[in-house]
Amino acid sequence: MAALELTTADLQEILKFTVELARTAGKLILEGSQVIQSASDSDVNQKKNSVDLVTEYDVRVEELVKKELKGKYPDYKFIGEESYAAGSRPPLTDEPTFCVDPIDGTTNFIHGFPFVCISLGLIYKRRSVLGVIYNPFLDHLYTGIKGQGSHLTRGSAAPLKLPLSSSPKSLPSLSQAVIAVEWGSDRRERTITSKSTSFGRLAGDPAQGITGGKMAHSLRSMGSAALNFAMVAQGGLDLYWEIGCWPWDVCAGIVIAEEAGGVVTGSHADFAATASSDAFGDVTEEILTGRKYVVVRAISGNLGETASDAQQRIIKEFYDTVEDVPTN
Amino acid sequence: MAALELTTADLQEILKFTVELARTAGKLILEGSQVIQSASDSDVNQKKNSVDLVTEYDVRVEELVKKELKGKYPDYKFIGEESYAAGSRPPLTDEPTFCVDPIDGTTNFIHGFPFVCISLGLIYKRRSVLGVIYNPFLDHLYTGIKGQGSHLTRGSAAPLKLPLSSSPKSLPSLSQAVIAVEWGSDRRERTITSKSTSFGRLAGDPAQGITGGKMAHSLRSMGSAALNFAMVAQGGLDLYWEIGCWPWDVCAGIVIAEEAGGVVTGSHADFAATASSDAFGDVTEEILTGRKYVVVRAISGNLGETASDAQQRIIKEFYDTVEDVPTN
Repeated sequence: MAALELTTADLQEILKFTVELARTAGKLILEGSQVIQSASDSDVNQKKNSVDLVTEYDVRVEELVKKELKGKYPDYKFIGEESYAAGSRPPLTDEPTFCVDPIDGTTNFIHGFPFVCISLGLIYKRRSVLGVIYNPFLDHLYTGIKGQGSHLTRGSAAPLKLPLSSSPKSLPSLSQAVIAVEWGSDRRERTITSKSTSFGRLAGDPAQGITGGKMAHSLRSMGSAALNFAMVAQGGLDLYWEIGCWPWDVCAGIVIAEEAGGVVTGSHADFAATASSDAFGDVTEEILTGRKYVVVRAISGNLGETASDAQQRIIKEFYDTVEDVPTN
Repeated sequence: MAALELTTADLQEILKFTVELARTAGKLILEGSQVIQSASDSDVNQKKNSVDLVTEYDVRVEELVKKELKGKYPDYKFIGEESYAAGSRPPLTDEPTFCVDPIDGTTNFIHGFPFVCISLGLIYKRRSVLGVIYNPFLDHLYTGIKGQGSHLTRGSAAPLKLPLSSSPKSLPSLSQAVIAVEWGSDRRERTITSKSTSFGRLAGDPAQGITGGKMAHSLRSMGSAALNFAMVAQGGLDLYWEIGCWPWDVCAGIVIAEEAGGVVTGSHADFAATASSDAFGDVTEEILTGRKYVVVRAISGNLGETASDAQQRIIKEFYDTVEDVPTN
């Protein structure tokens, strides 16, 4: 069988379909939240550990989405959080592949903390080309198509082009940045110590005892990788650092952030290998499945500096500050 | 002059007025956000340090609120973030005293991160008796009156009684909890090290090398003390720990959380002095102005345990885990 070729018109049609699907899934997520909030504690199951919670609704939402996508796009592949056996990187091909996290922010979902979304991405020729992120609790919808921009639709208002600021601000250093970080589900000593040391260095004042301190404006943790990417795309966060999540958590967010002028890279090593080259900002299969990500918002370069140079400068400062936290 | 005596009817009238005022202030906050997002970097002033940002709109909102409150309630006292000389605890009296943070979440405000609110509280006989918290970005309004419950109004929907769950879940231990913490504006070495150690202990797995680790479900940081209190009242967070903020940040949130079945205490020492006594949960002047707070949501006690006992058990576990971070 010849490989499918997707046109811009195809992607626009897919966006229309997946937006409707995300809204339908959102209704099921809201229904699940009602059930969980009124359920007794024993109805909430535990998986790997008490942090890594999965509920019946996580599976139900994925089954709904998978069924609808298979019905409409039978030749496309599907990678979902629940149907994929975790623990190894999912193999990609050049074929169109939906990559879905049915409920991103599961811990939030279970607790009724309203930063929860469905994240629905499309990978094509091993790149993220379309993304839909929908938070049904706030009725915030983020969408993006490769080469055609990204948008935020709040409630029934008209879509807003991202980033929200028409002239993104410069970012002289991390000391002016609001940075999203997450504690994640890996709670082993070396991971937690590495993260807390890194977070403290980002926050700490170098003039008051924190060696290498960056004194960032502040650190935020909302508990949803997809919504963090979306918030960087929007411009409400300057940078988001993620270690240990999976392609379905970030696939949609990557294209939404990129189309908002943001840039995405992978680990310390991925960044070092691509900085100052044309490969910088190309989210290859290795980066997409690499479980370590940095995304930086659209920024204006300082005098004589391109936007891309400015983003590279910020990522370099960031990776010079934080440790390379292990994922295994 | 004889001290003013406030009745329930008075408080209801004050709530009506302050809700309208908060919505008016919210419009000014949104206007300010538009101006700031489209302004050049140099328009954003710096105060104490780069974290502790204050903008023109912070002052403008406080002036608006102060003027309206003085016009309507000329005999009431007023404590506001901007008009009060920071650095010492504001003195309280038995008189009705409005206690206002015009823009809580200033860093978020400047960055366009939509977790920003006006926090408008009323202190009477040295206790928080009325609270209004309004986030104009999400159009979320939280209100509470001592003895009369607290509510969340989202957009134009009907007010919802807090907590949102009609039967609050039990909380066997911190390992089931989602906990809000903040990095704050004090970035000195001892503060940051104490916080990052404490946060790491809350997150870390005791079975995998973190001594005293609690392996909480997760930690969240949204950057607004008032909205954290409101989220605990709602039930979306189990516990919020704050060090270093001021009465205007928490005055409204305290009564909203209390009326939602939550409980508030102060520092390690405040808690130790009141645990297992009738004084537990009484937010005295000392606690209200003490700059250290813990608030826990409404929880059902385990077998044979009252709700208050359960809340004390969780706070004890919490304070046995985290360090007593200094504020000076």
